Formats: sequence, structure tokens, C-alpha cells
Amino acid sequence: MLAEIITIGDEILIGQIVDTNSAWIAQELNGIGIKVHQITSVSDNESHILSALHEANIRAQLILITGGLGPTKDDITKRALCKYFDTQLIFHEPSFKNIERLFEMRGRKANLNNHSQAELPTNCIPLNNANGTAPGMWFESEGKVFVSMPGVPYEMKAIMLEEVIPRLKRHFTTPFILHKTILTQGVGETLLEELIADEENALPPGFKIAYLPQSGMVRLRISASGDEQIIRKQMTEEYEKVCLKIKEFIFGFDDDTLESVVGNLLRQKNLKLSTAESCTGGYVSHLITSVPGSSEYYMGSTITYSYESKTKILEVPANLINEFGAVSEEVVRIMADNVKKKLNTQCSIATSGIAGPGGGTKDKPVGTVWIAVSTPNGTVTKKLLLGNNRLRIIHVAAITALNILRKEIIGLN
Amino acid sequence: MLAEIITIGDEILIGQIVDTNSAWIAQELNGIGIKVHQITSVSDNESHILSALHEANIRAQLILITGGLGPTKDDITKRALCKYFDTQLIFHEPSFKNIERLFEMRGRKANLNNHSQAELPTNCIPLNNANGTAPGMWFESEGKVFVSMPGVPYEMKAIMLEEVIPRLKRHFTTPFILHKTILTQGVGETLLEELIADEENALPPGFKIAYLPQSGMVRLRISASGDEQIIRKQMTEEYEKVCLKIKEFIFGFDDDTLESVVGNLLRQKNLKLSTAESCTGGYVSHLITSVPGSSEYYMGSTITYSYESKTKILEVPANLINEFGAVSEEVVRIMADNVKKKLNTQCSIATSGIAGPGGGTKDKPVGTVWIAVSTPNGTVTKKLLLGNNRLRIIHVAAITALNILRKEIIGLN
Repeated sequence: MLAEIITIGDEILIGQIVDTNSAWIAQELNGIGIKVHQITSVSDNESHILSALHEANIRAQLILITGGLGPTKDDITKRALCKYFDTQLIFHEPSFKNIERLFEMRGRKANLNNHSQAELPTNCIPLNNANGTAPGMWFESEGKVFVSMPGVPYEMKAIMLEEVIPRLKRHFTTPFILHKTILTQGVGETLLEELIADEENALPPGFKIAYLPQSGMVRLRISASGDEQIIRKQMTEEYEKVCLKIKEFIFGFDDDTLESVVGNLLRQKNLKLSTAESCTGGYVSHLITSVPGSSEYYMGSTITYSYESKTKILEVPANLINEFGAVSEEVVRIMADNVKKKLNTQCSIATSGIAGPGGGTKDKPVGTVWIAVSTPNGTVTKKLLLGNNRLRIIHVAAITALNILRKEIIGLN
Repeated sequence: MLAEIITIGDEILIGQIVDTNSAWIAQELNGIGIKVHQITSVSDNESHILSALHEANIRAQLILITGGLGPTKDDITKRALCKYFDTQLIFHEPSFKNIERLFEMRGRKANLNNHSQAELPTNCIPLNNANGTAPGMWFESEGKVFVSMPGVPYEMKAIMLEEVIPRLKRHFTTPFILHKTILTQGVGETLLEELIADEENALPPGFKIAYLPQSGMVRLRISASGDEQIIRKQMTEEYEKVCLKIKEFIFGFDDDTLESVVGNLLRQKNLKLSTAESCTGGYVSHLITSVPGSSEYYMGSTITYSYESKTKILEVPANLINEFGAVSEEVVRIMADNVKKKLNTQCSIATSGIAGPGGGTKDKPVGTVWIAVSTPNGTVTKKLLLGNNRLRIIHVAAITALNILRKEIIGLN
């Protein structure tokens, strides 16, 4: 049982918009055991749309199409579908009522262009679009299913959830698919693969592992398909075996983020956090505060981007900076300790480093970062060497600091 | 002259990551006059990759491939390319030197798996990957060009800009295309379109305007193709006409960012900046410090995510917070004034707001943000209402604050 997604629109092919619909649709289909075989983005051009439909029809049993359903001249998906199914458009009263309703809500009246949006191919089952004027369409043809939806994400999503997913569940008997994602930090994909080589080689049939690196972390995804009961049992076993081999690097699972995991730990243990950032320039704080509810445990930060601000706001002794330099274990430790006192928190993170491109020396090249993490158990420090890409240095330093804090909190009694 | 993009990776087809590479690549290709005909995402499966290559080769002259070049077993793009071109892998010494260099920079040693990353198909021209261990590859075959690059965005982007684009310019004769991008803030695309409707309707043949909204800003791209001399002259004229109509919203052009424009102004006028962030939680600071050399003019920040930190670090009078609330013109003004004094700067930005999802009231709903910007000319404040998406609120508030500072600095004598 394979599906394909076809996204239609010149704006995708000139890079004007990023196609976020496909990933969302693929996740939803996976959730009901339907695998996406291919995603194809084509232009608003009839023959291009037709050839994409023909090719997808050869490979897949389900074809989901988004885009090209607007009221303007450049939207030609419906015309292409009529040609593909050798049919024509017919006016669909309930769809027009929906269009009128939407216009009334905005205090306006539907016009002729909108009237044409209620014209649909004779062979389709119209799918109600609660959030927009273009109805979705469900086609069945020679054992295959085709679905056409608007490209506006929140319209498409509502049609998928309310109309398409329930119909797909009734229409197809699908194999069971299960994914488990293990999130790791502080280890490269090469080493990870070595560490779990035995487990990977001994995976049961239908199981596979993917390594998904992101700057500063690697996601490890175990996927399996087959009989639900067997797969669930095997997954738990395999998953635990893999986790055992790499447990020191694991910070979470599936949709966790390091900042949300740390936030949950702080909340559970009733600890408050503050930060003192130099080279990360507010990025640690941004990650922490991107989590809803973070004001419950996060008190604030001092971003000390100059010697003067380090001494003035954080009261780092000037002689310490003069003796060891701003990027040093001694200074970063004092930063962590002082911000903790200053903001009356039990935990703190401090960073100081050289994000470049300037400022590097032989002893302390660009990419040198010192991190200090303080908890009721004391203050630990770590030195990183992170290459020479400014944004990557900032990103990896922040991620690493959060992960050290996570480990330190877990280590508390 | 048509190009196709093939993105390889199961993680795309299960929706675990959104393919942002294709849009970026399409924009870059457009910039040098190459049109993307189709984007295809396929799985890490040899026969699937091969059939995608065959099909793209029928339709296009240039095929750009991303993904599947990692050191682990699930990455099979190189094997597929060998099969496609009927060749084999050979060890490439300079690529291995690059891998060793990258490992050394992080204080580690390359291993056997990394050795295999330096093995490349015999018929390719290796493309240096400055930011990662997987080299890019350039193939020429029967008048067509194939390029394979890693899927990690910042690795792919560097290879594209440093290696692929210059080679494409030399290899293909493409029509002359000229783009000018006008960057605006504080205005929606609908209003922009109205303001420049006359100019847009009167554009010379071969000219068109695209509206590229991003949260908090709209980029306006004027594109033209044709004879270079004529186009350059016409572009200057059209561009100036458009700018005249919307000049109050323009903050920069082409590759400018608000944070780099503000940085340049501060440097030129020899002014120092500090910030005091509440609801933006470090994001303003992150934007400012993402610019290389920002330590010349940026002194630091206090992120006061609690009442206590506002009174303690920033010395905001407690009675002011009690009387007007932390999200108020009065408090944000004092924050801007106090951080300026504290960090001894001439300019400052302060933010305080409700990023949600919790914390809203009838008077101050989620999305309410107060901004204060202080310069030697005094302190100005602004209230924003930014909807209910937490990350968008943070982003738009930060961008707006930077733009207010830009205008204030320009207004200085």
C-alpha cells in the first residue's frame, strides 16, 4: 500500500515557498499505516500535472494532490483532473453554500469567480472545506484513490483530518507501521552506528534504523511494519537493546526537544534556572523561552558581550579576566556562580567562547567555547572545540550546555 | 534550460523533516537564470533513486541531488550514482585530508567509516565541503550535468555557493537575469501591492514583481530577463520608482538583514547598544550577535523573565510593576533607560509582552508586546498586537524593535 503526494504550484518551483504540506501529510498517513513512496512538486501547467498523475498512478494506490485550486487564472488543477478522468465540471450547490457562508463571515458577498469554485468534476465526491472556498475532491478510479486539496496549509489540514483520514481508514486495509525515535546529543552518527552495530545487524525482518543528524544532535529512528501485536512487542525489545548501548547520549524520544526536556526536569524538581551568556549571545535563553510556560522556572539571563558588562553586571573580577582571558574555565565558572546568586536560582548555565570569524588566537582558536553548569551539586565545566562556522558554534554550544544541565539535574538526589 | 532537484531520504517521506533545501536551491538557480522544472523526493532505496535519475534526465539538462551521503549504512546515494554511471568508487586523498582537518578542529580522529566518505565515483569532479565530511560531486554525462550534495543545509549551501553556482555559470549559457530585492518591515503584502499597483502595471516587458512574505517582513523581488545593457538601465529606473512609493517601509536591499543594517549604522555612528528583553527571551540579542563583529558595538543584555529579575538586575521600581504591570509602557521605558545606564551605552532596546499561550487577560491579550527604543535623542515606545503564535510573537517583536532602532539612529543628527 503506497501513497504519493503531488504538490502543484510555480511558487514552490521558484523557491518562493517551502512545501511544508508534504511532511505534514506524510506524518498523518504514516500514522494510519500508509507509506509515502514519493513526493513530486510540479508547475501550474496542465501537461506537467497530467504526466505527474500518470506516473504516480503507475507506482501508488493513493495519490494526494495539493494546490492549484484558487479562483484565479493560474490555478488549473481542476481542469487537469477533468482531462485526466475524461469528465467535466458540474455546479455543486452545497459547496457554493459553504462559500457564501465564508463570505458572509467576513461581511462580503461571493462573486462569479467564487461561483466557479463550486464547480467540481462530475466523478468526484466533494470534501467540505471548513476554512476556505475551495472544496476538496475524492476520486476513485480503477481501484486507485485520488484526493485533491487546496495548498493553504490550514485549509488542507482540516480537510485531511475531518474528511480524508476517516475515508482512508474505511477504504484501505493497511499494514501496521511503528516508528520510535531516540534523540541523542554529544555523539556523531559514525560512533553511534559503531556502538549499536550488533543490534542493527540482528534486527528482525521489517525493522530498520535511520540516522538523522542535526547540528549538535543525532536522531536515531527505528521503523517497523507488519502485524501490530508482534511489531509492538519486538519494537519494545529492540528499542531497549539499542537504548542500553547508547544511554549516556540519549536526552529524549520522538517529539522531545532538549529545551522542553530540561524544562520538565526543572519543573518536576522545583528548580529555578538562570543563564549568563557570552558567545552564545542569547541563543540559550531563546531556546529555553521558546517553550510555553518557561517563565515558571526560568528567571532570566545576563548577556555579557563585553569585558565591561562581565565585570559590571556579573561582577566577574577584572583581574580574573586579565589573568585567564574572558574565554576561560575560571571566568565561565564565576559567571555561572554569580548569575545564580544574582537571580536567586538553584541552577545556572554560563558560556564564553570565540564564535568568530575574528578573535581567534593560536591557544584559543575560533570555535573554542567554555561552558559552566551549576546546580545544587556544584559547578561543572567543559571545553568545546566547534569548528569555524559562527552560527553552528552558537547552536552546538547552546545545545551542549542544555544537555550538561539535563545530566546534572538527573544526577541530583 | 531546465533543472530538476531530487532530494533523497526516508526522513522526508515519513515527514520527519521538511525539505527546506529545495526552495533554497530553486532560488539560487533562478538567480542565475536556471528554471526548476520539478522537485522529486525519493527514499533511500537504490532502484528508486535510479528511476528518479532516469526520469529527471529525460526532462532536464541539470539534475541536483541532495541527501544520502552520510557515513552510515542507510546512506546509499554514492552507490546508486556508481550504478547509474556504471562506475566504481575510488579513494580521493584531498577529500580525506578535509575530513581529517574537520575532525582535528573538534579534537577528534577520523575512523574507517570516515575513510569511506572520501571514496568517490571515478567519473566525478569532487566538490569541497568546507563544513562537513561528505564531499559534493559534479558529473558530466552526455551533455547533462548531475550534482550530488549532502542534505545538511549549511553543508549543502556552502557547496552550492562556493562550488556549484560558479561552475554552472561557466558551464551553461543562460539568459541574463537580474533580480533586485527590496526589504520591507511593518507593512503587509496586500498594502504593498496597492501602493505600487501603478508601477507594477506599467513594468516593461520581461519584468515582474514577486511578494515574498516572511514573519515580520516582506521581501519585494523585481526580476527581469533579456539584453543585459537594456535590462540594467530599465531596472534602475523601475526600482527607483517602486522604492519612492514605499520608502518609509524599506530597511535594506538584497542580502541585507535588519540586524546587519542596524549593526552597520551603530558602527558608522560609533554608538554602543544594549538590550533588556522580557518576552523576546534573548531572541533580539541572538539576532544582533549572529552578525560577525557585533561585539564591537553590542555590549550585552539583561533578560528579565521574572518580576524579581526586573527589579533586581534592572532596578525597575517594584511599585511601577505593581501599578502598571510588567507588560506596560511605563515598565518597558524604564527597562530601556536602566539597561542603557547600567551598560554605559548610547542606545538600547527593551521588550515586554505576553508570548502565550498562557498569561493573557482581557485588557492585555496574548500577543500584546511593548517595545522601548532609546537613543541619544530620547526614548520612544510602541505597542504591538501580534496574534497568538508564541514563536511568531517573539520573532515579529524582535524584528520590529530592531527596525524602530534603525529609524531612530537614522533620525539622529
